[in-house]
Amino acid sequence: MKAARDTFEMNQKSEDCFPVYCSVKEVRAFLLRAMEAVKVDREIAAVACESLLHASIRGTDSHGIRLLPHYVAGVLGGRINPNPKIRFERRAPSCGVLDADDTFGGAAAVAAIDEAIKLASETGTGFVAVKNSSHCGALAPFALRAANQDMVGLAFTHATPKMRSENGVRPFFGTNPLCVAAPMLNEEPFCFDSAPTPFSNNKVKQYREEGRQLPPGVAADRQGVETLDPELAEQLLPIGGYKGIGLSMVVDMFCGLFTGMAMGDEVSTMYGNSMSEKRKLGQFFGAINIEAFEKPEVFKKRIQDLADRMRREPTGETGSDILVPGDPEKRAQKIRMEKGIPLTKKGRDDFYQLAQSLEMEMIRGNDDE
Amino acid sequence: MKAARDTFEMNQKSEDCFPVYCSVKEVRAFLLRAMEAVKVDREIAAVACESLLHASIRGTDSHGIRLLPHYVAGVLGGRINPNPKIRFERRAPSCGVLDADDTFGGAAAVAAIDEAIKLASETGTGFVAVKNSSHCGALAPFALRAANQDMVGLAFTHATPKMRSENGVRPFFGTNPLCVAAPMLNEEPFCFDSAPTPFSNNKVKQYREEGRQLPPGVAADRQGVETLDPELAEQLLPIGGYKGIGLSMVVDMFCGLFTGMAMGDEVSTMYGNSMSEKRKLGQFFGAINIEAFEKPEVFKKRIQDLADRMRREPTGETGSDILVPGDPEKRAQKIRMEKGIPLTKKGRDDFYQLAQSLEMEMIRGNDDE
Repeated sequence: MKAARDTFEMNQKSEDCFPVYCSVKEVRAFLLRAMEAVKVDREIAAVACESLLHASIRGTDSHGIRLLPHYVAGVLGGRINPNPKIRFERRAPSCGVLDADDTFGGAAAVAAIDEAIKLASETGTGFVAVKNSSHCGALAPFALRAANQDMVGLAFTHATPKMRSENGVRPFFGTNPLCVAAPMLNEEPFCFDSAPTPFSNNKVKQYREEGRQLPPGVAADRQGVETLDPELAEQLLPIGGYKGIGLSMVVDMFCGLFTGMAMGDEVSTMYGNSMSEKRKLGQFFGAINIEAFEKPEVFKKRIQDLADRMRREPTGETGSDILVPGDPEKRAQKIRMEKGIPLTKKGRDDFYQLAQSLEMEMIRGNDDE
Repeated sequence: MKAARDTFEMNQKSEDCFPVYCSVKEVRAFLLRAMEAVKVDREIAAVACESLLHASIRGTDSHGIRLLPHYVAGVLGGRINPNPKIRFERRAPSCGVLDADDTFGGAAAVAAIDEAIKLASETGTGFVAVKNSSHCGALAPFALRAANQDMVGLAFTHATPKMRSENGVRPFFGTNPLCVAAPMLNEEPFCFDSAPTPFSNNKVKQYREEGRQLPPGVAADRQGVETLDPELAEQLLPIGGYKGIGLSMVVDMFCGLFTGMAMGDEVSTMYGNSMSEKRKLGQFFGAINIEAFEKPEVFKKRIQDLADRMRREPTGETGSDILVPGDPEKRAQKIRMEKGIPLTKKGRDDFYQLAQSLEMEMIRGNDDE
């Protein structure tokens, strides 16, 4: 405990030393220590931590390592089962259902996409619905597992109802994301991972912290009236009005209906509920074997050509680059694999509190190296 | 020819008599007469016409019977093959590729989704990529065929590059739509059929005709600068910025990469090109057998409950109804099955010209009945 406090206090000396950069190796060790401290099965912990780490490396901080204290609280409260019996049942040659036994969604998701990949190897496509699951973090790591096997990977999850209905005053659907990944010839796979809202809840929080006005079409207040004031923002607006609602409903159909879990406004919320309540979420994963349609080399070359063409398109007044979906994450990954994962002051404080409460060594960070 | 001219001239007397309503039966007969006049295979014609008719009945006029003259021109010019040999090849237990032999996309699409349904009956899921295809109209009729077999139906097509790139100045991707349909307990299936742009090209044209200003976020001018002036609108903007671009790219991956057809900015355009040039489009269809995941009765009851709950949600200031995706189409269908399909003056003029050029009987309309 002494080392932890020292490191933390050192970083407290000045606001300037934030963010603190921590190597991936060091963050991984910290995450695993925390999981071990709350007696999570070693294999489950390894997989769940890798998903958080993956999101942070790719710059998706909202779904990254900052969730560790929330996950630990979930284990301690009884929401998350640290020693699950994950069961997979094949229901048709290309379909199956995986019972997550209320463990980490990220661990269940890896098991599910791996089963989907196996099914797709046999029949061309594989689809696996996950029931009795919990928050699974960003979807990208799961879809990418399929892409790395020369398949198109698909991932869906429903989420806390937070998106205002079109013509309505309150949320009905969650910001239910979908993710599609596919291999490319000369770079990391194409990966489109997106919720049907322009902003995530986390991005609204960021604007709030920075005292910045929100752009139009992003958020609504408690009464459901659109607002530019991040202090008043309590609901998110969908992309394309009813189109975002439709996308969200489709995702919920896969995640709620194919799994027997709740749907729409009945989906459990991430925050605000007791940490002893199981989330009972559903997720849906798919793999499509490229070989069933096209030679993988041809597929990879053609999508690479397409991406290269896109990036060479003439830019508009702002001069901002034209990006292929997933490019910002690839850029973040390149930087963070070298520089490490940044911890904000709040992130560091949260980790320090966690380390204290679990009586384990605090993460150190680059200023000690 | 006399009857045709008489009817038409009668309707020319006053602008007030537009739109003219024509019964579904009468429109169907007119469509089939035109197809017969240009020697389209009888079975192919029946299927292609039914897709146009289906769109018009559901109020999707942009993709409905107004396309008939364009389709006829395609047959006469050589773009569309009126007597195709459609070939299906099963490439894996749950996957196959259908060669449309350059016929009507609507006819190929029906053949493809029906093959996907067969595959899904066997293996739980079925996915069929269509190559050498042409414009297929609205996607809903194809996805709905699966829904009517207690499956979730999926349909995708790429389209004319018309959507401005994010940060760019010109179009790269088409307004590539996706469609998902699923059966419900007490009403027509749920059907979400949507392009990744707030407005269709046709809706922009409608604003132009009515001299109305466009809402923000809908269109850009020739230089790629956003505009509210429908006279200047030449490109469409995506929903959710890069999110709409990502959705479009995913659809293009299924339709262009799985089929060996063109992708992105290389996809052929619907208008402007010679009518002798084949479109060489790709489409992608899927069916997921609900039974592989959930009892169909339970699925249908739960999605019905969800839709009923959505429609009962409190409404906002405008008092507009909260709709389930597909509700506007269901409302249109109810009205049009009784009242008939409306023909605008332009639609009527186009049909009259077509009837004249093909030397066939003109459609009559309700004012003769």
